[in-house]
Amino acid sequence: MNYLKTVVFVLFCLISCTNAFAQKHPSLMLTEIQLPHIRTGVQQYPLLQTSYESLKAEADLALKSPLNVPIPTDGGGGVTHEQHKRNYINILNCGVAYQISQDKKYADYVKDILLNYASQYQKWPLHPKRKPNHPAGKIFWQGLNDCVWQVYVIQGYDLVYNALTTKERQQIEQNLFMPILKFLTVDSYETFNKIHNHGTWNVAAVGMTGYVLNQPDYVEMAIKGSKKDGKTGYLAQINQLFSPDGYYMEGPYYQRYALLPFILFAKAINNYQPQLNIFEYRDKLLAKAINTSLQLTYTNGVLFPFNDAIKDKTYESIELVYGLNLAYADIKEENHLLEIAQKQGKVIVSDAGLKVAKAIAAGKTEPFKYQSQWIRDGGNGDEGGVGVLRAGDNKDQQALVFKAASQGMGHGHFDRLNILYYDNNTEVFVDYGAARFINIESKRGGHYLPENTSWAKQTVAHNTLVVDEKSHYQGKEELGEKQHPELLYFSNQPLLQVLSAKETHAYADVDLYRTTALVKIPEFHKALLIDVYQAKSASSHQYDLPFWYNGHVVNASFKINAFTNHLTALGKDYGYQHIWKVAENNIDAKGGFITILNQKRFYTTHFTSGQPLVVKQIAIGANDPDMSLFPGKGFMLSQPTANQQTFVSITEAHGGVDPINETITAAGSGISNLTLLNSDDKQTHISFQLKGKTYNYTINYQDKNNYITFK
Amino acid sequence: MNYLKTVVFVLFCLISCTNAFAQKHPSLMLTEIQLPHIRTGVQQYPLLQTSYESLKAEADLALKSPLNVPIPTDGGGGVTHEQHKRNYINILNCGVAYQISQDKKYADYVKDILLNYASQYQKWPLHPKRKPNHPAGKIFWQGLNDCVWQVYVIQGYDLVYNALTTKERQQIEQNLFMPILKFLTVDSYETFNKIHNHGTWNVAAVGMTGYVLNQPDYVEMAIKGSKKDGKTGYLAQINQLFSPDGYYMEGPYYQRYALLPFILFAKAINNYQPQLNIFEYRDKLLAKAINTSLQLTYTNGVLFPFNDAIKDKTYESIELVYGLNLAYADIKEENHLLEIAQKQGKVIVSDAGLKVAKAIAAGKTEPFKYQSQWIRDGGNGDEGGVGVLRAGDNKDQQALVFKAASQGMGHGHFDRLNILYYDNNTEVFVDYGAARFINIESKRGGHYLPENTSWAKQTVAHNTLVVDEKSHYQGKEELGEKQHPELLYFSNQPLLQVLSAKETHAYADVDLYRTTALVKIPEFHKALLIDVYQAKSASSHQYDLPFWYNGHVVNASFKINAFTNHLTALGKDYGYQHIWKVAENNIDAKGGFITILNQKRFYTTHFTSGQPLVVKQIAIGANDPDMSLFPGKGFMLSQPTANQQTFVSITEAHGGVDPINETITAAGSGISNLTLLNSDDKQTHISFQLKGKTYNYTINYQDKNNYITFK
Repeated sequence: MNYLKTVVFVLFCLISCTNAFAQKHPSLMLTEIQLPHIRTGVQQYPLLQTSYESLKAEADLALKSPLNVPIPTDGGGGVTHEQHKRNYINILNCGVAYQISQDKKYADYVKDILLNYASQYQKWPLHPKRKPNHPAGKIFWQGLNDCVWQVYVIQGYDLVYNALTTKERQQIEQNLFMPILKFLTVDSYETFNKIHNHGTWNVAAVGMTGYVLNQPDYVEMAIKGSKKDGKTGYLAQINQLFSPDGYYMEGPYYQRYALLPFILFAKAINNYQPQLNIFEYRDKLLAKAINTSLQLTYTNGVLFPFNDAIKDKTYESIELVYGLNLAYADIKEENHLLEIAQKQGKVIVSDAGLKVAKAIAAGKTEPFKYQSQWIRDGGNGDEGGVGVLRAGDNKDQQALVFKAASQGMGHGHFDRLNILYYDNNTEVFVDYGAARFINIESKRGGHYLPENTSWAKQTVAHNTLVVDEKSHYQGKEELGEKQHPELLYFSNQPLLQVLSAKETHAYADVDLYRTTALVKIPEFHKALLIDVYQAKSASSHQYDLPFWYNGHVVNASFKINAFTNHLTALGKDYGYQHIWKVAENNIDAKGGFITILNQKRFYTTHFTSGQPLVVKQIAIGANDPDMSLFPGKGFMLSQPTANQQTFVSITEAHGGVDPINETITAAGSGISNLTLLNSDDKQTHISFQLKGKTYNYTINYQDKNNYITFK
Repeated sequence: MNYLKTVVFVLFCLISCTNAFAQKHPSLMLTEIQLPHIRTGVQQYPLLQTSYESLKAEADLALKSPLNVPIPTDGGGGVTHEQHKRNYINILNCGVAYQISQDKKYADYVKDILLNYASQYQKWPLHPKRKPNHPAGKIFWQGLNDCVWQVYVIQGYDLVYNALTTKERQQIEQNLFMPILKFLTVDSYETFNKIHNHGTWNVAAVGMTGYVLNQPDYVEMAIKGSKKDGKTGYLAQINQLFSPDGYYMEGPYYQRYALLPFILFAKAINNYQPQLNIFEYRDKLLAKAINTSLQLTYTNGVLFPFNDAIKDKTYESIELVYGLNLAYADIKEENHLLEIAQKQGKVIVSDAGLKVAKAIAAGKTEPFKYQSQWIRDGGNGDEGGVGVLRAGDNKDQQALVFKAASQGMGHGHFDRLNILYYDNNTEVFVDYGAARFINIESKRGGHYLPENTSWAKQTVAHNTLVVDEKSHYQGKEELGEKQHPELLYFSNQPLLQVLSAKETHAYADVDLYRTTALVKIPEFHKALLIDVYQAKSASSHQYDLPFWYNGHVVNASFKINAFTNHLTALGKDYGYQHIWKVAENNIDAKGGFITILNQKRFYTTHFTSGQPLVVKQIAIGANDPDMSLFPGKGFMLSQPTANQQTFVSITEAHGGVDPINETITAAGSGISNLTLLNSDDKQTHISFQLKGKTYNYTINYQDKNNYITFK
């Protein structure tokens, strides 16, 4: 860390020596010097053109609507909440529209609404809908939203600055922005100095405002913390919130959200104090964080939804448009980013967006380079991580996600060694994500539902092993925070991609080992998902391994015989109370298979454990009085009692149906005779047949140089 | 019908006077005279080019695969079944590829495979997987597929005719096609003379083969029936299978399927005997049938799935590509058809496809003209019908489908006065369609499942009224066939679109009246769905009105309180045994509302009946031991006991969520105070408030000139 220390020291000096900033406006996402090029660019480059047109249409809509700055009253999703959100978006849009069109009506809108806010803001108390033990805002129920508001609004102000009179500026700065700076740094002292995404939004709001208002003291606090000692503030957050691989411990959904204030503030720092080389900081950490965010998506654009996550969230979200634009324009012109920019369908109307749109118009787009990789978690990169294996091209890609990361704080789920599996641009083995209807007031005011704790976070809601119907770490965050899984092996050889990890603290006396792989046999189009889950204990336990799937069961090696006239809940606690037991079958030691038809393709999962098993068909929805849970189906491999247990499965993607032409191909799986030959501390050895040929797959747990053999 | 009689008489004379046909090859979908234009067209017009490229790629794949003419063994979806299907497609593709590319290798493929069939066909007995009481084939388990095979293969033969030696032709004609003609007309006499889509495929196969082989006798039989008296055969089928509006009584899914042999044979007749003016027959019936097929789709391309229907079926299916191409090229050049051709993404590589692709390339495309219309059912147009109301443009259209048609023979459902509702390019109130996994052998060999009868056909599986937990006509086809609903009123005024019909025979002593409407209030973006369902009886009954929806309940006027630890089936018979009762609420006489979030838009259904009601939350899946039923959710308005009952509902589409930007608009419905003021034989009068204004909606059952008032 000597390199890091030196950088930090140099930065400290630079910051401390700076007393005032160049006061050109605008100087944030759009700069005076690039403005003429953007003005012509919106007529030349299609993506910039449509992005500007849609922004301008919204700005025009804002101009047509009555100016509305209501007294803050409602919680998330409510009328005043949504109005203040719309206002900050309008302020930014009109600011940009003013600079591009040079039509003063847009600047007048920003002026009028800011003067209105300035006339009221100081009269507002803390928000009436604030919650105990949660930092309050004044404009919104939580302080976080006030910070976001300010990050947008200060940009809008910067954009119309030159259109305002000195008196108008004074009114706005003295009655609105300076009080906000005080509120964010003094009244919200704790959040301002927190190493947390709420803290990042706060320091970004303060720092960007500090630059625009030429208040170096606030900028210094934003970068180094209230005490200016570097223990808190922006740099401390970069140091502590991301792993060396740019992974944010709360997971992709919050990584995306956390990213925006980091990069907006970075851009501001880079414009006002280029000598700080902020994009180089911590071995180009911000570039890595942006890249890792994109690598944590599937080809359909959706962010891998482990931990608390709203499942519809894609890389089209504005944070990743900003991220990609800045990564391309200010960090490194990697042309494969342009494919995603095209799929995002927009750029930021800004210096960076200009570059991206220009490059696309010049035909520089290359396919995005999805990587098979192990992404380390933890400030030092030594607290487990997330593995992603990919096979196939960007049009029809298999992706296997392996969650072996740290707990992820309050938004973490108890899903150690969980897997998610994607193919054919859709989910195959799924993660429920979060139980939350964001912004929908009738569903608990848009907050996380009680079912987020009782269901979504629990182990059984995931595709990983549950012991004795209890969640990992008894479902207690404080216990989970202390431990993390350990990577045993990672390989990204094209034909044999493997991730193997162990988790030995989730249960008092059971050690969990999972080795999951995408194995490509050259004659076959699709890789096989080979999954070996070993549980070891000195005493006897119940072991349940659910696979939550999308699609519909169309075949099985056994007659399912679902319950007919009544259903009961599978258990009483740890999420089991939310599961309906739909069917239960005893399977002999040979194992069996289940075939699912999902988005017109077949997936057959062959399974065995070398012992008799119980297979349960399960469905989400029990103990859900408000009907808040989304439907979902799974099958669960279950061993009622054993010390050692190894679950082996191979999932083959095969054939498909064409409902338009009513044709069908390869409805049957090619695999047969899946056999667990032995499984112990040293080795797990399985064999199976495919088109008349026998294959052997061996995991050598104690031999890192020869961890997997396949022949 | 004098006009019709005259046409038929003229046709009879013309056909009878014809003894031999012009023997140019090819003369079916591609003709000698157009071939040079098609050959240049595949290089000029993008849609023809990509269509040909994809056809040629498949032809090339066929050439690379080993020639395989297996002895017929397997049922639907099985290996030999799929192989013989692939063969007929390959034969046609290679025939076309030969004529376009003039590369003899494609003709050689067709020659080799046909000689192979010719060497085997006569040895094959009736198919071993044939079913009792179902016409058997020789190549396939049912005779229908043999006919389809022949319709494709005769086209392939016609295309390579000139590349064969006389001896080769003789071998193929004498050992394959002549025996097939005999099989289809003699061994399958009954089907050949049946007024049914199986009959149409049969006569088309026979007639087209008759033309190509210059066998006028077979052509005449195909057109006029075995006895050549016109009581059966092609013309009789046109007369009897379609209503005067071109509606095919089995519903859209089978209409599409039935259409293909009609139009292929029509094209053949038109080419060989243009003097018959077949496209003019029965007041341009075939043109109407094609148009009606397209009008029975929603903007997402899906055919309205009432009666037995596979729900993924869209207008992209090959039958409607043929239909559209011929309608445009041979009947009338309506440029609005080109929008659908573009969405189909292909044309037939043929004379007709050339015209369509050329017109699209010339920029003639116009938006497809979806119509609000009443489509009559029955040979004379007097057996009820299907109503479709549309509001909004093709990008975001509301569509309300009202099923008041005749039973629809064996594929009909017991769903009198059912409604389907679409918006935002998706289903809102849904029809289950058929319970069938077509071609998937593990699911009952791909045939209809037992659940098709026990669930999909039953009344409660639809959005219509069930009395005393029994289906319409006791679920008996023979009873349903005797009766049909009666249209009371239809209006397609832009602001007040209404369909009203009665069904007075579905139950012994209950009369059903439903009036369903799309009502547009100019200030509001979306029309309101106002639905009034009146049941009248002298005695007391239980009345259940289910609404099966897509999406998720996010709000209700009452606390739902779903059952927590166990679920039970809703009933014992008529489909009720397949429903889980999820929740049950008593609602007072004022009624209430339920809000559903579906594809990011809100739908609030306000309901009342002026009396206390029970509202049940229901889900599909009980008594389904093989897990064959797809999941589905509904709410059911239920009146445990009453003589007269009127259910009133208004469904408002409003607002939406944007998960990418995490914003929300208009989560609450604007409607309030829905009140049923009175409902009797003469009138139903309701009122409601919307944004502070009171609206009155009155149905005057006895006044056709003033049936609805709304103010």
